[in-house]
Amino acid sequence: MKLLKVHSVTETRNIIDSMLYKSWDYFEEIHAEESIGRVAFENIYSPIELPEHTKSVVDGYALKSKDTIGAGESMPVFLDVLGQIEMGKGDDIEVKNNTAVYVPTGAIIPKGADGVVMIEYVENLDENTIAAYVPIAPGQGLIEKGDDIKKGDTVLTKGKRIRAGDIAVLCAVGIERIKVCKKIKLSIISTGDEIVDSFGKVKKGQIRDINTHLLASMALESGADIGLKILTKDVFDDIKRAIEESLEISDMVVISGGSSAGNKDMTVNVIKALKKGEVFVHGVAVKPGKPTIIGKVGDKAVFGLPGHPASAMIIYKIFVDYLIKKYYSMEEERILIEGISAENIHSAPGKETYQAVELLYKDGAYEALPIYGKSAAISKVAKSEGFIRIDENKEGIRKGEKIIVELF
Amino acid sequence: MKLLKVHSVTETRNIIDSMLYKSWDYFEEIHAEESIGRVAFENIYSPIELPEHTKSVVDGYALKSKDTIGAGESMPVFLDVLGQIEMGKGDDIEVKNNTAVYVPTGAIIPKGADGVVMIEYVENLDENTIAAYVPIAPGQGLIEKGDDIKKGDTVLTKGKRIRAGDIAVLCAVGIERIKVCKKIKLSIISTGDEIVDSFGKVKKGQIRDINTHLLASMALESGADIGLKILTKDVFDDIKRAIEESLEISDMVVISGGSSAGNKDMTVNVIKALKKGEVFVHGVAVKPGKPTIIGKVGDKAVFGLPGHPASAMIIYKIFVDYLIKKYYSMEEERILIEGISAENIHSAPGKETYQAVELLYKDGAYEALPIYGKSAAISKVAKSEGFIRIDENKEGIRKGEKIIVELF
Repeated sequence: MKLLKVHSVTETRNIIDSMLYKSWDYFEEIHAEESIGRVAFENIYSPIELPEHTKSVVDGYALKSKDTIGAGESMPVFLDVLGQIEMGKGDDIEVKNNTAVYVPTGAIIPKGADGVVMIEYVENLDENTIAAYVPIAPGQGLIEKGDDIKKGDTVLTKGKRIRAGDIAVLCAVGIERIKVCKKIKLSIISTGDEIVDSFGKVKKGQIRDINTHLLASMALESGADIGLKILTKDVFDDIKRAIEESLEISDMVVISGGSSAGNKDMTVNVIKALKKGEVFVHGVAVKPGKPTIIGKVGDKAVFGLPGHPASAMIIYKIFVDYLIKKYYSMEEERILIEGISAENIHSAPGKETYQAVELLYKDGAYEALPIYGKSAAISKVAKSEGFIRIDENKEGIRKGEKIIVELF
Repeated sequence: MKLLKVHSVTETRNIIDSMLYKSWDYFEEIHAEESIGRVAFENIYSPIELPEHTKSVVDGYALKSKDTIGAGESMPVFLDVLGQIEMGKGDDIEVKNNTAVYVPTGAIIPKGADGVVMIEYVENLDENTIAAYVPIAPGQGLIEKGDDIKKGDTVLTKGKRIRAGDIAVLCAVGIERIKVCKKIKLSIISTGDEIVDSFGKVKKGQIRDINTHLLASMALESGADIGLKILTKDVFDDIKRAIEESLEISDMVVISGGSSAGNKDMTVNVIKALKKGEVFVHGVAVKPGKPTIIGKVGDKAVFGLPGHPASAMIIYKIFVDYLIKKYYSMEEERILIEGISAENIHSAPGKETYQAVELLYKDGAYEALPIYGKSAAISKVAKSEGFIRIDENKEGIRKGEKIIVELF
């Protein structure tokens, strides 16, 4: 396949959608309690109604609402108390005309009753008689059977990342085990003659590996599992072997290369040299991140990211994280924060510019501070809390301008 | 200790600070790669400078800047090429007057050079001679040793929740193992005569346990570990035994009770009946969540939360999560989103009101939809993405009003 022209982010995502997306049919069945942070594999429907029975939402007396018509402060209605419903017990009493049954909050409303008068509006005349000083409308003071959740209601939506509130609802309807997306296994290859193990000895001119750890950590945040982590020299056969080994156990491979042009072409050539290897994108019109590569080997996605960590971070987010979430059918999960630009921000003419920013909360508003640094600077990578996108037709951002920051 | 009056959130937090906060001196030492999501136990300082040597940030020729004075498009300067620096290799060449050395991006700048001219501005006349068509300022095209990170610079701040970018920086300076806060162990007790195991049989009038799972999941999100999860009836001795067992293995206990007033007093009385048991707060001026209890047994915090899941969720967030993050010395981690209220929202006069909302992103702005429901409704708990705070002196929020939403 011939190399294509340099693409915009939208064009690139369209290529990802058409060439790399596939239905992700892999799931695990796990206990609801252990599902926090996982992604729902399918819609889950309630097997029951909630509440399962009509219940009181106040401490009071269940009664027939018609018996309270005309009740007022100066003219109470008098009702015989038949007994009480205990919490957690059934309703073995029936409310008849001009009678009432005590119900604590959450107790079942006994047969015959259609409303509850709160104890605050009641006077206990003797053990068996109350005076009610307010009229009660039908349905007042209670929640009807099924009013909260109906049988068949969706209690968890396919593609949702499960949070505490979702688990609460699953438990409320008694769903113990659920299917969650099996995690995508992603392998990471970092290449570069100068790159050495982060924690070993470093000779003059060598630099510690950053991208393997950065990208592995970002992949964990995306909800992926890590397969292999391989560090190689910029040698064709080494990179080829690294990709082959990775593909054996992974669903996706992310290669981050040295920054030289020669190196980038090597990665493209290695992918094309692999059996069923194709490259769809070589170069995106994004600052930073021009040397991005997107291809596949068989049906497994292979990404080539820029070597510089700050660029790799943004390209990972806009393309790799994008595809992972697409596989999981995840609903939009971006958090967008409105902020004020703390400085003038330059953009590259004719290219979409993505600029990492730090956010400062000041006087009730966020100030977004662009994070610059010579292309070798990595100290600011940790400070990047989000990024802004500047359209290719816009000439930068002025200090004080309103901007939208997407959180990392 | 006598029961105190009903407190505002600020007063309650002050009580938490003075009565419950203690320095959290427990840590684990783990591999930097495994630290994602954990909280830094101490400041970490860089043991090295970064870059460790002055490096090129472009592909070009390292030279003495003074040799390029006066260079221009029509009048290049001519330099003898002495060789090249390879990636990952030392600088065994010295640049002398009117000479240059080829340096790829990231290569060490050889001795004698103080600038780099990009290859784009250079013509190769023969193998050993180049013509440079631009003047180069001292420092141009390179990053000085230590310009990114200085020895002793803070590369991770005590109390920071570790993200991918932090791990990148640790790896860049070769820090392999770091101290993270040992997780606080939190036990959860749910009480109520009507509450039964979420996944077992449910008789008429009984309801499935929600709060144990909701609060355990929220505690995981706060960065705590779960100790015991106990479901008890509203029986003094049962609750007492549950707290005693929990305290044996936990740092903190969260009890969520039935909604009746009698039940709440029982929890207070149980805490006070325990050896070294004290109650500081019984009732907060917050809607929802009036029946909140805060106390301690020995030096371990004990919280009593409202029985209704939606209320328990908010009270957990504003008091329990608050204390956990205080223990970890965590920096402010709230995410605040500006939104427009989609409806009129009522507040309780004289009380701070916390209202859970769902967020809808529409036309470039967030709309916050208040989540109502009779007090027994739990279907909306999963939809609560954040909450707004309405001041006790403010009479609700009008539809269309700007509001600040704190994300759960």
